[in-house]
Amino acid sequence: MSRWEPDARGRLEQAALDLYQERGFEQTTVTEIAERAGLTERTFFRYFADKREVLFGDQDMLRTIFVSAIEAVSASTAPLDAVAAALEAVVPVFQERHKLVQQRQAVIAATPGLQERELLKGALLTSAMAEALRRRGVTDPAASLAAEVGVIVFKTAFDRWASEPNTQDLSRLIRASLDQLKGIVAGT
Amino acid sequence: MSRWEPDARGRLEQAALDLYQERGFEQTTVTEIAERAGLTERTFFRYFADKREVLFGDQDMLRTIFVSAIEAVSASTAPLDAVAAALEAVVPVFQERHKLVQQRQAVIAATPGLQERELLKGALLTSAMAEALRRRGVTDPAASLAAEVGVIVFKTAFDRWASEPNTQDLSRLIRASLDQLKGIVAGT
Repeated sequence: MSRWEPDARGRLEQAALDLYQERGFEQTTVTEIAERAGLTERTFFRYFADKREVLFGDQDMLRTIFVSAIEAVSASTAPLDAVAAALEAVVPVFQERHKLVQQRQAVIAATPGLQERELLKGALLTSAMAEALRRRGVTDPAASLAAEVGVIVFKTAFDRWASEPNTQDLSRLIRASLDQLKGIVAGT
Repeated sequence: MSRWEPDARGRLEQAALDLYQERGFEQTTVTEIAERAGLTERTFFRYFADKREVLFGDQDMLRTIFVSAIEAVSASTAPLDAVAAALEAVVPVFQERHKLVQQRQAVIAATPGLQERELLKGALLTSAMAEALRRRGVTDPAASLAAEVGVIVFKTAFDRWASEPNTQDLSRLIRASLDQLKGIVAGT
């Protein structure tokens, strides 16, 4: 009965996001998601622990990419430059998924309970980056400040990228957001 | 029956924080808080909507102070300087309450469900400051970036102030935290 289904994960994700937008996140059941995707509930649970994980399942992957990128830069790299390299490293995860990301952001914006979860995700990714910087010998508060600044820059660029209909280059928006932040902090 | 009780609010707050630390937030009831404070439940509900509001009831006041401070600075003040003035303006709220703040932070650190609420509080205060900057004619992303940076600076200084046994000058820590952030962003 467990025949292989082509791109089951992708179909489940698309079905879930469509239903969350049409009916609301709270009103959607796993049964309905599986049905819409033409798959079984059992298949759903092979990929996602619950319907919330469709929206937050990328957290571990993002953390791994951020941390690996910080570990990979040369020892002499300044903390904020290490963080900028980490932000750059996650761009490919999002760049080809513009429409799915837009749907996800719309669902979160419409569901207060998910906004707190989204904030927690940001805080966990910030902690992971700060910890990676500490392992490179960056002391606090520099490690946590650099990580926090990085997440702000990313969030600003990402929100703009996700909110606009035409796909812009996320890398370029991250660099622009970092430059804007530098200007604000320098008072220029 | 509703005779005036001297400093009922302060007594309820202290009783609540003591109980949250002793027994855990989830395990404490309003009945127990009122009893510990030598007051009635009815008096508790005159000051707090629920036991969570003992920990987050200052949010509206902080928002008002932040926003008023940003509105009060001269029109030529740079966005980050306006935000710095706002951070400075809330110092008196905390400076005389070091022990209560330490208790509050310990309770939140011990209660995962409260950490999401604390993140939401930070996000709401950030939005309020960004909105106040926009009303001064600061455009986005500068308004939201300046507000986000301000909250990072404050959080860094506040966490340090709250985690140390001897009361340091919170204003001094905020200025130090801002200088550290400027150094990181400038790459020095």
